[in-house]
Amino acid sequence: MDHLSLQDPLFATYVIAATLMILKAVSMSWLTVVRMMRVKGGFRSPEDLRKTPLNPEPNPKQLEPNERVERVRRIQMNDLENLPFFLVAGFLYILTEPSLLLARVLLYGYVASRLLHFAAYFTGQNHETRATFWSVGSFILIFMTIRTLLAAFGY
Amino acid sequence: MDHLSLQDPLFATYVIAATLMILKAVSMSWLTVVRMMRVKGGFRSPEDLRKTPLNPEPNPKQLEPNERVERVRRIQMNDLENLPFFLVAGFLYILTEPSLLLARVLLYGYVASRLLHFAAYFTGQNHETRATFWSVGSFILIFMTIRTLLAAFGY
Amino acid sequence: MDHLSLQDPLFATYVIAATLMILKAVSMSWLTVVRMMRVKGGFRSPEDLRKTPLNPEPNPKQLEPNERVERVRRIQMNDLENLPFFLVAGFLYILTEPSLLLARVLLYGYVASRLLHFAAYFTGQNHETRATFWSVGSFILIFMTIRTLLAAFGY
Repeated sequence: MDHLSLQDPLFATYVIAATLMILKAVSMSWLTVVRMMRVKGGFRSPEDLRKTPLNPEPNPKQLEPNERVERVRRIQMNDLENLPFFLVAGFLYILTEPSLLLARVLLYGYVASRLLHFAAYFTGQNHETRATFWSVGSFILIFMTIRTLLAAFGY
Repeated sequence: MDHLSLQDPLFATYVIAATLMILKAVSMSWLTVVRMMRVKGGFRSPEDLRKTPLNPEPNPKQLEPNERVERVRRIQMNDLENLPFFLVAGFLYILTEPSLLLARVLLYGYVASRLLHFAAYFTGQNHETRATFWSVGSFILIFMTIRTLLAAFGY
Repeated sequence: MDHLSLQDPLFATYVIAATLMILKAVSMSWLTVVRMMRVKGGFRSPEDLRKTPLNPEPNPKQLEPNERVERVRRIQMNDLENLPFFLVAGFLYILTEPSLLLARVLLYGYVASRLLHFAAYFTGQNHETRATFWSVGSFILIFMTIRTLLAAFGY
């Protein structure tokens, strides 16, 4: 059987989870762009203070950190610390041929945990809320990775 | 047919694009090293102020941000926000068996967009130029990812 | 032969190296959490100053950078600059069917270089020590990537 066929329900589960997470990650870049344009600031490069059609009235304050922009950058940083590893761990986990039910619970559970983490972080909920959602995702990632490592040793 | 054979033109296209992007990403680390050695600064860790053969005359100013070093770090950060997701999205996209022509346009187009983004950022071009190249790459990434997601649902 | 079988010694080598590196990366997040809880600081979001069960006595100083936390963040940042690219490069390199011995030397050598890099960075060794371990890993990554690129062109 071809493990990497999109017709294989197990692999399709991974592909759906992976593509949703990639779209989530890319959205953070665009959200940063939207917020920088709205607050007309939060820039980082000296050349961004040049007078151009998109920045007709440059101001040195535009290079200062802006909390509305920085919040999205922190969320994106959290994505970078987690999603690339999930993308590989989920792929390798699928190759251990887990049950379809368990794979769906873990992979879609991870997706849900990251979307809830985003919602909590974006709206500035208490640290405990954000940390809980992050932890759920992190535990799923650790479980899949250790399961795959054991499988590579024949267990 | 073995999807993951380097003799398969579709997979070879992905491998060429992916390895070029990995080399690009690794080059940013080495470019940071080169610039830190040239300006003898832009360091980040307290222990980097110790007197050693590579830093014979330590100075607290070496820990201050240096724009020539920070510019490469910003470029590298932009890579981290984009390339890991491209590497996975491109791989999964290939498994949807697009036409070879379309795959080449998208994957090599992405590579070109990132090299042009680097050139624009490195030489301090206006934000509009840099943003245009970044956007082209981002749209290619989004297109491939949505196409793959739809394929996983049978469309 | 199924390249992606965990029974294949070559692929198992990659899976072991990859999962160890993923666990290493995830550990940095948890180490950051542990250090933030110990020093009761190094936070980054304004909402983390709210009075909650986990932070009964909030203090604006908790948002200032704390070197013990920042050190782990720098180590994690170095992981993000390297590991996602290793995870993809190692996978593609295995598909070029190198000898098992060479694959083990390169992949396990990379893992060792990153663990030694962590040990040197975590304990604040001289920059030269840390840089040496990082360079070994970087050279392995570059070698595998160029070898794979050449293989995609039929060499």
